[in-house]
Amino acid sequence: MTEKTAKPKALTGLPSYLLTRIAHRYNQTIYAELRAIGLSTISTRIIASLKVFDALTINELCVHALAEQPTMSRALDRLEADGIIKRTVKDEDNRKRVVRLTGEGEVLFERIWPVTLSANEKMFEGISDQDRDVTMRTLLKVLENIRVHPI
Amino acid sequence: MTEKTAKPKALTGLPSYLLTRIAHRYNQTIYAELRAIGLSTISTRIIASLKVFDALTINELCVHALAEQPTMSRALDRLEADGIIKRTVKDEDNRKRVVRLTGEGEVLFERIWPVTLSANEKMFEGISDQDRDVTMRTLLKVLENIRVHPI
Repeated sequence: MTEKTAKPKALTGLPSYLLTRIAHRYNQTIYAELRAIGLSTISTRIIASLKVFDALTINELCVHALAEQPTMSRALDRLEADGIIKRTVKDEDNRKRVVRLTGEGEVLFERIWPVTLSANEKMFEGISDQDRDVTMRTLLKVLENIRVHPI
Repeated sequence: MTEKTAKPKALTGLPSYLLTRIAHRYNQTIYAELRAIGLSTISTRIIASLKVFDALTINELCVHALAEQPTMSRALDRLEADGIIKRTVKDEDNRKRVVRLTGEGEVLFERIWPVTLSANEKMFEGISDQDRDVTMRTLLKVLENIRVHPI
């Protein structure tokens, strides 16, 4: 047997394994809670992104909500029909088409956000502020290293 | 307007946003590379997990490869037909059914591993060893905080 590659000692020593497993678990848990109030994964991501950015183009929403354009368009059609988002133009001078939350969308955000914050706090239970800060700074740099979209 | 919740300043201040976006980007990138050598996401995860653990039950594989049982069973059927894994028993004393890599599976791992390591190195480019260590230790604790399966 030719052994070209040493056997990895543990998958948990591999950053990608930890990151993928944490993200998967987090999303499974939180979207089970949000489904109970009638929200899908993509709807939740769209609503949270619009709350933070006020107005986003469909392309920008695809990046933040991690969806492809056809899926995004269908999700926006549903949210618009339910009165949660509206398609509009950025402003009178800039005719770029953007998406915004309606008043009803803002109300829904109030239900999403506490669930999101509480799930995030649970992740970092027992971790010092200093370790949390280093980790967040490092993850931001990791995202910069690998992202494809400049936003 | 009643403003119950302060508007989040940026999504990148939210650990779950960073973790999910990094995991999504990493997986999109690496599985595009691995698809070029004929490997699906789940096949890659199965092969890497079996290399690390030697023998795993289907339930254990579901946890490590982040798949549900029906998807896992279909993936294993394909990999067995292609001669990459074999279903066997753990040992003569312990008749528990487990999955192992074949010789051909070991060879495939040699193609997967350099791609995986190189993508992991790219993520941490320009990050100090110390920050990397703190981040890995913290992520391990995060996984312990939120995992459902004890493995």
